[in-house]
Amino acid sequence: MKQFIDLEDIPNVNELIKEAICLKKESLEYQYLGKNKTLGLLFFNSSLRTRLSTQKAAQLLGMETMILNINSDSWGLEFEDGTVMNAKTAEHVKEAAAVISQYVDIMAIRAFPTLNDKEKDEKEQVIRSFQQYATVPIVNMESATAHPLQALADAITITEQKQKPRPKVVLSWAPHPRALPHAVPNSFAKMMQLLDVDFVITHPKGYELNPEITKDTPIEYDQEKALVDADFVYVKNWSSYINYGEIECTDEKWMMTSEKLGEAKFMHCLPVRRNVIVSDEVLDSEQSLVIEQANNRTFSAQVILKNILESL
Amino acid sequence: MKQFIDLEDIPNVNELIKEAICLKKESLEYQYLGKNKTLGLLFFNSSLRTRLSTQKAAQLLGMETMILNINSDSWGLEFEDGTVMNAKTAEHVKEAAAVISQYVDIMAIRAFPTLNDKEKDEKEQVIRSFQQYATVPIVNMESATAHPLQALADAITITEQKQKPRPKVVLSWAPHPRALPHAVPNSFAKMMQLLDVDFVITHPKGYELNPEITKDTPIEYDQEKALVDADFVYVKNWSSYINYGEIECTDEKWMMTSEKLGEAKFMHCLPVRRNVIVSDEVLDSEQSLVIEQANNRTFSAQVILKNILESL
Amino acid sequence: MKQFIDLEDIPNVNELIKEAICLKKESLEYQYLGKNKTLGLLFFNSSLRTRLSTQKAAQLLGMETMILNINSDSWGLEFEDGTVMNAKTAEHVKEAAAVISQYVDIMAIRAFPTLNDKEKDEKEQVIRSFQQYATVPIVNMESATAHPLQALADAITITEQKQKPRPKVVLSWAPHPRALPHAVPNSFAKMMQLLDVDFVITHPKGYELNPEITKDTPIEYDQEKALVDADFVYVKNWSSYINYGEIECTDEKWMMTSEKLGEAKFMHCLPVRRNVIVSDEVLDSEQSLVIEQANNRTFSAQVILKNILESL
Repeated sequence: MKQFIDLEDIPNVNELIKEAICLKKESLEYQYLGKNKTLGLLFFNSSLRTRLSTQKAAQLLGMETMILNINSDSWGLEFEDGTVMNAKTAEHVKEAAAVISQYVDIMAIRAFPTLNDKEKDEKEQVIRSFQQYATVPIVNMESATAHPLQALADAITITEQKQKPRPKVVLSWAPHPRALPHAVPNSFAKMMQLLDVDFVITHPKGYELNPEITKDTPIEYDQEKALVDADFVYVKNWSSYINYGEIECTDEKWMMTSEKLGEAKFMHCLPVRRNVIVSDEVLDSEQSLVIEQANNRTFSAQVILKNILESL
Repeated sequence: MKQFIDLEDIPNVNELIKEAICLKKESLEYQYLGKNKTLGLLFFNSSLRTRLSTQKAAQLLGMETMILNINSDSWGLEFEDGTVMNAKTAEHVKEAAAVISQYVDIMAIRAFPTLNDKEKDEKEQVIRSFQQYATVPIVNMESATAHPLQALADAITITEQKQKPRPKVVLSWAPHPRALPHAVPNSFAKMMQLLDVDFVITHPKGYELNPEITKDTPIEYDQEKALVDADFVYVKNWSSYINYGEIECTDEKWMMTSEKLGEAKFMHCLPVRRNVIVSDEVLDSEQSLVIEQANNRTFSAQVILKNILESL
Repeated sequence: MKQFIDLEDIPNVNELIKEAICLKKESLEYQYLGKNKTLGLLFFNSSLRTRLSTQKAAQLLGMETMILNINSDSWGLEFEDGTVMNAKTAEHVKEAAAVISQYVDIMAIRAFPTLNDKEKDEKEQVIRSFQQYATVPIVNMESATAHPLQALADAITITEQKQKPRPKVVLSWAPHPRALPHAVPNSFAKMMQLLDVDFVITHPKGYELNPEITKDTPIEYDQEKALVDADFVYVKNWSSYINYGEIECTDEKWMMTSEKLGEAKFMHCLPVRRNVIVSDEVLDSEQSLVIEQANNRTFSAQVILKNILESL
């Protein structure tokens, strides 16, 4: 693997999931791979799981890590070409990416969307600019429209937990007080299209995700119908894609409850707002897989870093 | 040792102090203990000595370290049960503690008190919640009401420096422009009750510490009287406990001076405001032990981490 | 080498440059030197290259690193002697420097100038106070008036790239929207005086640097004349030294362009504002050495740390 910008960079998803599940049992076996290699972690935004699990994965592989919180530690970065940089930004990504490439062997980047400039977000300006100007492999730690490390962890979790060859997986929208990105539902939807699952998306009208991503995935506006016979229910809020970044609905009846969940397993990428996205009862039950999903973030990051290290 | 929330977690204080003093001479002898183990350091508040000495202690034991500045790097955490999380906090400690436990082998936490909600502070909501929901040992790097790593460093310092079998130790209040927590004086008082010392507390009326902590320690309101024949004088400001978090007195005459100190050794946990808490003359004299106290923070943290690593 | 506060700490610059160029080819050969040694990096200001390249250099030498962002992680520091510390600052550098010295083997510090208090800046209060009260070697990661690690990286770059025994080097002022320090041009000027180069400084009238630093370096107010037959053109903004910290000129005609540059190599310490300091055309051309200068920051820091480690 030469980079990990999005799921398309994975040559064979099922093989990679198998490899991750093996790695989980022998997580220290590849420490030689990262010896004298450095992972740079660049954060334009907050992070808990991604920050810690990606560091942990690098350490398990014997790598050094260096963290840069771009906004607080460093300079405002410019991404537009040809600008006269006489305002806020002090350094162009052309220089930043080329320079950092000389200090690290792999560069992992987190950069959330603006949620008000759809075109810029869809161009994935931040991570694509780093990719263009860096001379080392880039790993996506959540970009404007994709969170492939999360989707890979989710796929590992479903693979480990499924009780039947082709489980039914439902992605169910939930209300949230703030406008949230599409990165997690986008990548989850793309990943489900790659697995042998029966996949349905349910959300209120107006919350359709980018149709180029959902493709022919069935969309069911009636949550109750969608949840029938579900094996895994992935709950997540996102803001409107059509009225880009807007909150169209905060209807509490979309919150996940034990009654609605039935016998299915509950999934969420975390952080999760209790009793807004999902009831305490669900999260505190044995049906919740959220802690195991977070655990698999380590092995999702480790399998990606391992494959990139092997290609260096 | 299974955790280090407070001094009660130490089975035998005198043995532990001896072990720490030995460790100081052979600080690299136990690097095998921490191999492939990770210490997570979570900061809700600022830190200099604690941050660096605890990292240093982990590195001396061969551990990896990962640091999370909760407020700037991550999400606002919720600690109340049953809340509808539709306001500021984005993640519940239930998830955060369980998730981080999967990335680290030991979790160290710093979380200061509110100083306006006595009940919440006394419940030690932050560190106790992490303890409840974490699946790895917790180390207290200063909580709302206790700073046991500091008290252990102080006890090591007194043990190393004492010139007589049972020295007289005075904890003397000093003025300060801002309201400060009770964690340091609380833990120091508890520690002194465990050592073979003659211990007195002196402060203006109204500055009584929690009587459940000071127990039968003599309180002397006349600083001059309290200081007679002192061997060690530990100076520290704290806000009122009775009128919780208030500043009752800023009387400069409580500042420690060379004249008042006499032949005694001067102690303070740092940071210290010069010429407010204590005169330059005292701090710059050979009687000041503050730098050595800070040095012993490394070995206080190392002996605790060593004992926890041995129990894993 | 016992410390690296400024270029005067280098016993023989040409030897050190040679050593750095060798180190670049065998950067992992000295990992034994830093084993069980710790570099503390203290930042009073933002940093990208310096932060990452100095960490990288330490890791190449087998050192552990600990980073402290003074303003966000820790307490406000006091540098004045004899102050009654009843206002903003919570800890005196006397304690901070002595304490941190106990946790690290070498202490690297970045502290920019005030640009409004010339006397304080010229006294180099921050780094000189740390030097005075620390008990471990200090490394300057850019202080109020000097950036010697940058100047060393620049000298390495010129030495590697020069096509003739005695190249002509021009330091050319450029406009900038904010008032910038003199540290980089100061150190570059001092370094050029130590190398076998034909060195000229060009800037608008009123932008004369400290004459105690420029000494008998020719100053040419006509940029075009200065640039004739140049082999290396180092472009940099700085604020007025005479009217300390003021912006006297923002004349765009001082921006570096391909036409003005001719056949010379372009140098800048980065971050650089495109189309303000220099045109895109220059930066994106093969004549630009800025990325290689940044690469040499690693080896400039490594050769300094190596020499200090050898002296411990």
